[in-house]
Amino acid sequence: MINKLISNIQKTKAPVVVGLDPMLGYIPEHIKQKAFKEFGETLEGAAEAIWQFNKEIVDHTWDLIPAVKPQIAMYEQFGIEGLKVYKRTIDYCREKGLVVIGDIKRGDIGSTSAAYAVGHLGKVQVGSKSYAAFDEDFATVNPYLGSDGVNPFIDVCKDEKKGLFILVKTSNPSSGEFQDQLVDGRPLYELVGEKVAEWGEACMGDNYSYVGAVVGATYPEMGKVLRRIMPKTYILVPGYGAQGGQGKDLVHFFNEDGLGAIVNSSRGIIAAYKQEKYAAFGAEHFAEASRAAVEDMVKDINGALESR
Amino acid sequence: MINKLISNIQKTKAPVVVGLDPMLGYIPEHIKQKAFKEFGETLEGAAEAIWQFNKEIVDHTWDLIPAVKPQIAMYEQFGIEGLKVYKRTIDYCREKGLVVIGDIKRGDIGSTSAAYAVGHLGKVQVGSKSYAAFDEDFATVNPYLGSDGVNPFIDVCKDEKKGLFILVKTSNPSSGEFQDQLVDGRPLYELVGEKVAEWGEACMGDNYSYVGAVVGATYPEMGKVLRRIMPKTYILVPGYGAQGGQGKDLVHFFNEDGLGAIVNSSRGIIAAYKQEKYAAFGAEHFAEASRAAVEDMVKDINGALESR
Repeated sequence: MINKLISNIQKTKAPVVVGLDPMLGYIPEHIKQKAFKEFGETLEGAAEAIWQFNKEIVDHTWDLIPAVKPQIAMYEQFGIEGLKVYKRTIDYCREKGLVVIGDIKRGDIGSTSAAYAVGHLGKVQVGSKSYAAFDEDFATVNPYLGSDGVNPFIDVCKDEKKGLFILVKTSNPSSGEFQDQLVDGRPLYELVGEKVAEWGEACMGDNYSYVGAVVGATYPEMGKVLRRIMPKTYILVPGYGAQGGQGKDLVHFFNEDGLGAIVNSSRGIIAAYKQEKYAAFGAEHFAEASRAAVEDMVKDINGALESR
Repeated sequence: MINKLISNIQKTKAPVVVGLDPMLGYIPEHIKQKAFKEFGETLEGAAEAIWQFNKEIVDHTWDLIPAVKPQIAMYEQFGIEGLKVYKRTIDYCREKGLVVIGDIKRGDIGSTSAAYAVGHLGKVQVGSKSYAAFDEDFATVNPYLGSDGVNPFIDVCKDEKKGLFILVKTSNPSSGEFQDQLVDGRPLYELVGEKVAEWGEACMGDNYSYVGAVVGATYPEMGKVLRRIMPKTYILVPGYGAQGGQGKDLVHFFNEDGLGAIVNSSRGIIAAYKQEKYAAFGAEHFAEASRAAVEDMVKDINGALESR
């Protein structure tokens, strides 16, 4: 799957991923009104609004991008109905040839991590049959529980040719509280990065490992160090745009081959029509605003890469 | 909710929680066969088997115990159908007066943690209406992202009078890989424990905080230290029984008032009929075996507490 991700990136010349994190506040009124008219102001109504919103954004951007990253929390908050749309979004994006990164940040002890791995990346056994429940291509994983929380995910990835992005240094302001603590003079996230590199050696694609890392765009200097520590690791970089990261901050996340990183933007793309810059599109044409925002983001990042 | 948990513990004289982590391998054949006959070897069939299994265990143990802890991964692996049974199990246990600890180990950056918090402990807004999607009483939370991953959960707990158990030192063998790393000569889990105590001060019940901690039974010496660092924190202790923890290892997790800890057993209770000790019950009477295992566990822990 890492090979497919890279091939999609090369085809689109766009090392970006669109975060499908549809908060209701981002969804234009006309879509919500239509969904509420049909299903009422219910969980089903919210789910329908999210689905129509996602579909229109995907329809307007899929040819420009290699991958999407739905954030499961934004669906899970609407319970079963929300999770149905999470699954529907995954299936729709995969049909379009997009790589789907499930931003699930799961992680638990052995057999429990195995259940998450099976449910999201693999197939669960029911008697003599087996079923893929969510079937994302990649999943994000929280490493706090150590190797025996991560290995069950790696095992499933080997079987299914899928992939992981493991949290190393997250983009949020307080990520340093624990991640930056010095262990023998070096921050904890470097240790986690070394572990990610080690886990990744056991499951290599052509040039990069199936086991990637998450490093926030908001910490470019740390990205530089982590790039060195994890040379064969693809880095998923959240925090671009709305969270403050810019193209020029991102060059150090990439290797000399122009690969090695994929930059996520969520709000900055899916709610682009709410920004002054794209306001002329209007709420009715929100998905065209998203397309323009993708084009600008790709230009910003590729420009920064070319001029480094 | 911490007050209700404590009142339930005092009423039952049982500082234990039954982990409802129903792997299909634990479920007796006669239940699976019946479910598969009705729904086929499908995700619905698996979900029905899990539901019948859970229901019978709850029916045979609810009067002995204060709380249950369903592990969402065991449901999530069966996709939407599994998650429906997760929800059904929560509702059924709450109707029985049990406190429900959702073992979800979620944790993300600000707005995303807020979505998880709303979906599991609070109410999500849809237009002018609001809905509780999963509605557990407590949730487990992963602290790797720091305060701004945890605070949204605390905010919802304050509004809804619900509670958290934050991972501090997990029960698995490799938990030390990151959690035990020394920061200024002290292990990381102590720093996390201090943070938990600090977060907890802002939301106190009568004697204990709404913000609890997870510390594995498999690390009793660390439990002793953490008990001191977090005096007002309820400790959820996994790892009893199948993972190797014993009553005598657990006394240091409790305060002098006999409170302050609640010990989880999953496999050891729900699959008790598979142990030699309870084999005489037979698979048909698996839930009676579970009841006997709860009684033995309570005796073991209370005995250890009395003789300390």
